[in-house]
Amino acid sequence: MIKVGIVGYGTIGKRVADAVQEQPDMKLVGVTANSFNYRIVVASKQKIPIYALGDHGALAKHGIKVAGQIEDLLENVDIIVDCAPKPCGAENIEKYYKPYNVKAILQGGEKAHAAQASFNAQSNYNECINLDYVRVVSCNTTGLARTLNALNQAYGIERANVTLIRRATDPMDSKKGPINAIVPCLELPSHHGPDVKTVIKDLNIMSTAVVVPTTLMHLHSVHVVLKKETTLEQVKDVFNKTRRVILVRASEKILSTAEICELARDLGNKRGDMMDICVWEEGIGVQGNEVFYMQAVHQESDVVPENIDCIRAMMGFKDANKSIQMTNKALGIYSQ
Amino acid sequence: MIKVGIVGYGTIGKRVADAVQEQPDMKLVGVTANSFNYRIVVASKQKIPIYALGDHGALAKHGIKVAGQIEDLLENVDIIVDCAPKPCGAENIEKYYKPYNVKAILQGGEKAHAAQASFNAQSNYNECINLDYVRVVSCNTTGLARTLNALNQAYGIERANVTLIRRATDPMDSKKGPINAIVPCLELPSHHGPDVKTVIKDLNIMSTAVVVPTTLMHLHSVHVVLKKETTLEQVKDVFNKTRRVILVRASEKILSTAEICELARDLGNKRGDMMDICVWEEGIGVQGNEVFYMQAVHQESDVVPENIDCIRAMMGFKDANKSIQMTNKALGIYSQ
Amino acid sequence: MIKVGIVGYGTIGKRVADAVQEQPDMKLVGVTANSFNYRIVVASKQKIPIYALGDHGALAKHGIKVAGQIEDLLENVDIIVDCAPKPCGAENIEKYYKPYNVKAILQGGEKAHAAQASFNAQSNYNECINLDYVRVVSCNTTGLARTLNALNQAYGIERANVTLIRRATDPMDSKKGPINAIVPCLELPSHHGPDVKTVIKDLNIMSTAVVVPTTLMHLHSVHVVLKKETTLEQVKDVFNKTRRVILVRASEKILSTAEICELARDLGNKRGDMMDICVWEEGIGVQGNEVFYMQAVHQESDVVPENIDCIRAMMGFKDANKSIQMTNKALGIYSQ
Amino acid sequence: MIKVGIVGYGTIGKRVADAVQEQPDMKLVGVTANSFNYRIVVASKQKIPIYALGDHGALAKHGIKVAGQIEDLLENVDIIVDCAPKPCGAENIEKYYKPYNVKAILQGGEKAHAAQASFNAQSNYNECINLDYVRVVSCNTTGLARTLNALNQAYGIERANVTLIRRATDPMDSKKGPINAIVPCLELPSHHGPDVKTVIKDLNIMSTAVVVPTTLMHLHSVHVVLKKETTLEQVKDVFNKTRRVILVRASEKILSTAEICELARDLGNKRGDMMDICVWEEGIGVQGNEVFYMQAVHQESDVVPENIDCIRAMMGFKDANKSIQMTNKALGIYSQ
Repeated sequence: MIKVGIVGYGTIGKRVADAVQEQPDMKLVGVTANSFNYRIVVASKQKIPIYALGDHGALAKHGIKVAGQIEDLLENVDIIVDCAPKPCGAENIEKYYKPYNVKAILQGGEKAHAAQASFNAQSNYNECINLDYVRVVSCNTTGLARTLNALNQAYGIERANVTLIRRATDPMDSKKGPINAIVPCLELPSHHGPDVKTVIKDLNIMSTAVVVPTTLMHLHSVHVVLKKETTLEQVKDVFNKTRRVILVRASEKILSTAEICELARDLGNKRGDMMDICVWEEGIGVQGNEVFYMQAVHQESDVVPENIDCIRAMMGFKDANKSIQMTNKALGIYSQ
Repeated sequence: MIKVGIVGYGTIGKRVADAVQEQPDMKLVGVTANSFNYRIVVASKQKIPIYALGDHGALAKHGIKVAGQIEDLLENVDIIVDCAPKPCGAENIEKYYKPYNVKAILQGGEKAHAAQASFNAQSNYNECINLDYVRVVSCNTTGLARTLNALNQAYGIERANVTLIRRATDPMDSKKGPINAIVPCLELPSHHGPDVKTVIKDLNIMSTAVVVPTTLMHLHSVHVVLKKETTLEQVKDVFNKTRRVILVRASEKILSTAEICELARDLGNKRGDMMDICVWEEGIGVQGNEVFYMQAVHQESDVVPENIDCIRAMMGFKDANKSIQMTNKALGIYSQ
Repeated sequence: MIKVGIVGYGTIGKRVADAVQEQPDMKLVGVTANSFNYRIVVASKQKIPIYALGDHGALAKHGIKVAGQIEDLLENVDIIVDCAPKPCGAENIEKYYKPYNVKAILQGGEKAHAAQASFNAQSNYNECINLDYVRVVSCNTTGLARTLNALNQAYGIERANVTLIRRATDPMDSKKGPINAIVPCLELPSHHGPDVKTVIKDLNIMSTAVVVPTTLMHLHSVHVVLKKETTLEQVKDVFNKTRRVILVRASEKILSTAEICELARDLGNKRGDMMDICVWEEGIGVQGNEVFYMQAVHQESDVVPENIDCIRAMMGFKDANKSIQMTNKALGIYSQ
Repeated sequence: MIKVGIVGYGTIGKRVADAVQEQPDMKLVGVTANSFNYRIVVASKQKIPIYALGDHGALAKHGIKVAGQIEDLLENVDIIVDCAPKPCGAENIEKYYKPYNVKAILQGGEKAHAAQASFNAQSNYNECINLDYVRVVSCNTTGLARTLNALNQAYGIERANVTLIRRATDPMDSKKGPINAIVPCLELPSHHGPDVKTVIKDLNIMSTAVVVPTTLMHLHSVHVVLKKETTLEQVKDVFNKTRRVILVRASEKILSTAEICELARDLGNKRGDMMDICVWEEGIGVQGNEVFYMQAVHQESDVVPENIDCIRAMMGFKDANKSIQMTNKALGIYSQ
């Protein structure tokens, strides 16, 4: 059993904690908390061991049973999934993980050079086998890597152009806006394009991005020039066969990110998560060697199975496909 | 086993269908569908028998296995929970339920006089025992009935004044607005106050309402003049002891309806539902015989346990408390 | 001519600057700026003298012609309207206005005790005549004071209960949220009720508040118990005769704050401002001595004419009514 | 003097009516109304002659003075600007404009083939001289035509790819959503690309679109492959010299569509309109012969000056540049 600890129990941390508990080959040793809130109250009720990061008293004062300090957690794990807000992950490597000789996964908000490699299960699992510090790329990069890797494997990609329409914040956030504005990202390319190259080397990709007043999902408008001509049916077939990617359909009244989230709720997914990247079947267009598609990315959860696979790779599990299958099955991922 | 059918498989219908399946004394015979969409696709995958309401072919064309027409469903059930959009429920009584001699529950969007009585489990379960046609009051009315009934039982209510800040539409809706406006309800009182009186007779209540651009929950600002003086601690105690009501806390970083919904997701509730009415502990104020509080109402799910209890009442189950306990336990309701 | 300076050139400051320039008895000496932005660019094009508050160079670097430092402005004015963000106004009295022997108006975000009195033209103009430091109450308090003062004058008020549904931020803000949540104010009463008492002494008022995801206007649901009975027609008549209050009508398709703002734009008001408080005619209800109404408050502009009147009062102009009329005429206020 | 009538007094109609009144060579004969609302109340106060389209009584009943029926208007004008909702414009040609021998401009919601030509002042003024029925292209198409035409004139365009992030509805709308969703346009290309070709023939352009929950402006992410290499400074220079296009700057704290709208308000533009297309200076990128930029489009007003120029072209005024200058000056357009 791989002994896993989670540092940072927020949007990603709590999901990875749940996911680890579903894996047959992993054990959740505990999670850290640095302040008191409803997430910690729920974790405590669920008997997840909680380790204090910083002031022990703040949690105890509110009646949270604390299993120890973060150092106690570090002594009992093989690997940490660090889900602290950036740039804490990079700092924590020096402060905690190296001194305690513990492997660590960072999240995609951290800079790529903070780790030995970046990870996307389908794009470059093998490059991360047995490494000590690996970064799982962000939700947007993960979404792009999944579909672009599939097309790249099938046809080769000459050039990809992406416009990312980003949700402004997560559903549980009552502070951040904007309420009524579109905010352009003025760096060119946006960081997403270059970030995809950390897991799909040599990809020729350009990205631009805007932020919009919604909380549910990101949406990507993707334009790919392939190295060969193809057809609409073939592209659908590629996506249909790609794990962690599903086709959603306007014919089923899935007209926006709102209905995708409702589908995820109806499926009984915990927290209404949608770990698959959702490509609209009716939004795929093919003209010769050019492909257009629209995909929705659930920013809260698509990286969760990637973290699980990354744990296996770093712990020496060599078979990427088998890991992906194990993870998907354990998490009940729709695409299987 | 009580044989239950659901007519109308939308926001409420699909939840009641799930809830019926969790009850030890009930069996879901089937649900109706009148058009093709992702909800029906999921129901079909979950092996819920689907009966066509209207054109059988539309469903079959999309590969949905249809168990029969609505008439076939009616012949095999004791009671229908009608969750069709208003005013279909009232029409369906004449068209379907009377001819087939089937009991039926209508939802709160229907007019009160369409049924023999209106229902809220804690307020007037006994009035509905063995009736044939009963209306479960709406989400907002249910929310008000739960907390006002508790205060009325404990102290007697001289006068209640409520301002309802209503979510504009449900999370899965990508059509309705407003996007950036507050819309006052210009009828005085808004229909909510009088509607509470259908389940708590003789209550002196005034209500006003506005609609705001959010999808998650309604929020009620409530002002009650009691017949006796009380204290803050006593009021908290009353709410703490009331089933289907919970106290939520800013001290746990629950600052808005967004964090309540996140709490519900973290608890693992299916679809992230919150069937309890949530009263902010720090928002309760008491001055002599006046009580102020703020409560949040999950419009998609708070009426679900009420529908279950209503089924039992109408089928002759006499013990309100026991039904409430059975329902709460089966549904994993947080307040228990 | 009253020589006026503006400290703080944001949402309120820029509007007061414009308003001062429209008055026949006032001269705008200049405004201060402490950073570079589009507001300052526009002011500069409009030949408004700009004085640096802090680093002179930041403005000059961007090509803004600077007339001097704030100290130069202070030497040339009779009165400052301080529109800096709270709590700068209170600090500026000690730091700038007392040493330079300049009168100053603070805005409603400051604490009441920071000034000698609080001001609302129709409620207590006379109390502020010749004072040196006066606070114009906030947008919400101004809105409440206008209609409550009118009812108080006409009937006497036994008790007022208000629920404020507050816009979360101003239209030009691309940072603040929430995007999808209702945030209750958990202090009881909210600060608005007590704040009204700073201008209408001895008013018995209770207020609660929530914040909602919109930028356009606040909306107040008001319930007043009068000292005498009245009728719907009489209440409409009171509001119709009250300056800076207008009746808006659903019959004219004004259904929300959005259409009020569109009305203001159609009227040609600068920036689409609506300095009148807007009461929905169809939303007024009267039952014996109880009155209910819904009013919308344009948070960006309703305090602007109050600042103008306050200048006159503090400079010794004794006739409140005449000042209000002069201000309204100069600003083209709809209610006249 | 060109005698102009307006049919349809909504978002565009009321603005064109105002704009016509500012032109030295035009006279507004009147506008039509088919129902009662605040817009008509304001027009009536502003002494704009109102002609009934349909039931005369509905307006009279509310005290609106009616100058006659639409037929009376048609007898007294040279040209109608039809701003009725689609597809009324196309129908009105047959029903009204041909029988009365009146020229007519349709708006961009109508199909291109409903008129003899489509119009964008800078792209194809000359093609519309003396025509009888012309369509002014939509707000999005106008925005694209302005900047793409400028680049096409300067360099030639090999290929343009655009992603349109569309505001869901106009600010005055309190009904339409979505509140919290991103809605992809599933037709490929979206209609905008082909529509640009109605005014810039032979342009190689691809467009995709999504709808987002905001009301203020559209935003376009544009990628252009030029026929020659260029530099960042040259592209800025092209846009700076293009009428009805301005550069906006993050350095001036213009970070989103919200601040652009605030800039327009601060400039004193009626209704806070921004008739210029706004390109973010810091968002322009050039790599060899590829250009990237982000532009914001004020959907309520950018077509207004185009309608004015279109009137002149159709009435035989031959000098496109002079018309554009006259219009810009009369409307106080920022770019001049």
